[in-house]
Amino acid sequence: MLAIRNIGALPLVPPGPVPGRRMREVEILRDAALLTRDGRMTWIGSDRDLVLPPACPVLDAAGGCVIPGLIDCHTHVVFAGTREHEFVMRIEGRSYAQIAESGGGIRVTVDAVRQATEDQLVELARPRLRRMLSHGVTTVEIKSGYGLTVEDELKMLRAGRRLGLELPTEIVTTYLAAHTTPREFADRPDAYLDAVLADDVLATIRDERLAEFCDVFCERTAFDLPRSRRVLETGKRYGLRPKLHADQITQMGATRLAAEVGAISADHLEHVDDEALALMYRAGVIAVLLPACSFFLGVPQAPARRILDADVPVALATDCNPGSSMVESLPLTLTIACTQMRMTPVEALVATTANAAAALGRQDRLGAMRVGMQADLVLLDVPSVERWLYEPGRSAVRAVIKSGEIVAGA
Amino acid sequence: MLAIRNIGALPLVPPGPVPGRRMREVEILRDAALLTRDGRMTWIGSDRDLVLPPACPVLDAAGGCVIPGLIDCHTHVVFAGTREHEFVMRIEGRSYAQIAESGGGIRVTVDAVRQATEDQLVELARPRLRRMLSHGVTTVEIKSGYGLTVEDELKMLRAGRRLGLELPTEIVTTYLAAHTTPREFADRPDAYLDAVLADDVLATIRDERLAEFCDVFCERTAFDLPRSRRVLETGKRYGLRPKLHADQITQMGATRLAAEVGAISADHLEHVDDEALALMYRAGVIAVLLPACSFFLGVPQAPARRILDADVPVALATDCNPGSSMVESLPLTLTIACTQMRMTPVEALVATTANAAAALGRQDRLGAMRVGMQADLVLLDVPSVERWLYEPGRSAVRAVIKSGEIVAGA
Repeated sequence: MLAIRNIGALPLVPPGPVPGRRMREVEILRDAALLTRDGRMTWIGSDRDLVLPPACPVLDAAGGCVIPGLIDCHTHVVFAGTREHEFVMRIEGRSYAQIAESGGGIRVTVDAVRQATEDQLVELARPRLRRMLSHGVTTVEIKSGYGLTVEDELKMLRAGRRLGLELPTEIVTTYLAAHTTPREFADRPDAYLDAVLADDVLATIRDERLAEFCDVFCERTAFDLPRSRRVLETGKRYGLRPKLHADQITQMGATRLAAEVGAISADHLEHVDDEALALMYRAGVIAVLLPACSFFLGVPQAPARRILDADVPVALATDCNPGSSMVESLPLTLTIACTQMRMTPVEALVATTANAAAALGRQDRLGAMRVGMQADLVLLDVPSVERWLYEPGRSAVRAVIKSGEIVAGA
Repeated sequence: MLAIRNIGALPLVPPGPVPGRRMREVEILRDAALLTRDGRMTWIGSDRDLVLPPACPVLDAAGGCVIPGLIDCHTHVVFAGTREHEFVMRIEGRSYAQIAESGGGIRVTVDAVRQATEDQLVELARPRLRRMLSHGVTTVEIKSGYGLTVEDELKMLRAGRRLGLELPTEIVTTYLAAHTTPREFADRPDAYLDAVLADDVLATIRDERLAEFCDVFCERTAFDLPRSRRVLETGKRYGLRPKLHADQITQMGATRLAAEVGAISADHLEHVDDEALALMYRAGVIAVLLPACSFFLGVPQAPARRILDADVPVALATDCNPGSSMVESLPLTLTIACTQMRMTPVEALVATTANAAAALGRQDRLGAMRVGMQADLVLLDVPSVERWLYEPGRSAVRAVIKSGEIVAGA
């Protein structure tokens, strides 16, 4: 049981998915208060109307803003090793091929992850997730995809599941064995897919609840459309809901596939076109945009305003990974979305709460500021959402609450 | 007296100004150690050659990188009020004129600063400077320019000087009364300059040592070339070295003026051209680039690689101010320079140490990793400069040392 009083601004974020054109229409309750009990929000209203239950602990917001716990719905935060060498080569103008020739690229991370034990992967990810929590991130999706053998992929998923058990953060795992074809299977992508999509592998993932989603990097340099379809359809038979890395480098119809297989989200979309957006809109696919990735790579951003205008629900995530987005901070990512994609702060908030929850199938429980929702909340030391994202690089977080419990700050 | 041992990487940054084409050539000493005494570096070398003086305290770098204390050589960090309303209007596509009509723009900050007492300005700036220190920033330049009356401009400079006396941070103040013409003098810029350049005003600034530099916003919307020349030449007669806000919005010859008046730096340069760069090179003017400002405004960056190729020494700064760059973090600013301007991490380091010191006339004492220099140092928890800037939004600072004393962390 916890009461939060004296809230300067309480954005009444509706449950997701919120269509793109409505994402900026969020009512803000001023001078508000809220009550939680048994991990849920039980009352939201004007501070002067609050009836404090006996012996209820009170957190004084001191005029600060309270927002739903942030949800980072696309990360690769279980990994080993770092790739700053590549970061510098890219700045120096070297091509992707030159970086690969010099021993860089995803294989660096794959080698490091294969050499790491499950314990080591947990040790490496824990401080990252703790820092994410300190930024107000209470739910994090984590993909496999750096193991690229059955054993190493399952090791990554198990590491993710353990992190969810030991940290306050809710962890959602996604099977991304189809991230790229590993060296051992060079020119034999189908044989690789035979291995990682084998019945016993997917049955293990299902039976041990190691993942909820199945993802594929649908791209010329990774998996083509028929293979991507095979990955997602096979995953579906084992209860894994489809997600896609789509239209990041080229437009090759991945969004059409997303619509056809009933994907919950299509992620990246730097090269999405209007036809693809119409398909996504009709099929109810959520667009997960990753502005920190484009920022980190120094490449153009996804056309966020065009996607919002197409009324597709937009979510935002860090894409935290050592190759293309070494960014743990979701608030920094949101400011990048504001300044580089021209999303308003309120749109950015909805994108990482209601719509990020929907991109993880959790809109019934997470992401909205509504009575009955899980009490995942962040108290900021600023009086508005706008002020929060206007100051990049300064943490405005005063307290983080997960299921009604204060788990950081305050 | 302090020894730092077990340093994984010690960039031997040379004294500034370092010409643009040599900024990436910094020797890195591995497995290093250093000694400080009486606030200066007295020995730098290989850890195994260290002869520890009796009773000398030792800081174990644990393989981390040690860099010179960072210098933020262009800020407006003494201010009052915030302008997130404008931040949102800009995102929504409103023009500068629309923002001004709705009551936004610099006048918001001018009104707030005029209403604030000197004490209040100190109170507001103190936590910002403390956070800057926690990011490794040991020297900060602060401009006036939000008072726009003689009294309020002197109040700002006095607030800056007091902050320098009470904080570990070295504060350098710049007289920027010629930031814009205030409402009371609308259409009478010369009468305004008569007031703020009056002999007794400048004599007070000189006699009370309230500023070292004189700056002017040389731009169509602010002060034209003849007036800018008048400001800087008048300041020079009172010992104030010239600086300019140049070529930010339009190219109107401000850099030529910088060369002619012997300015120590020309700042912004988003629209600099090759002729201007040739003039700057010949006159030894330092280019101070402000990548966080362009990032914050969502506009194109200054052509950093062209400026470096012209062999002009480049410095980088946050431009921290409530209108166009609400960014306190110099490390975040450096990552923006890396990813958006294609400066290498080592170039970015030199730009905020050796060259930032030169842009403040302190290259004999600050900015270089050399015996005899003031012991302003930052211990990072990462093994290289590259790794530090590769992780934006995470503070890698373990300890900050000012004049040989640990003033933050450790």
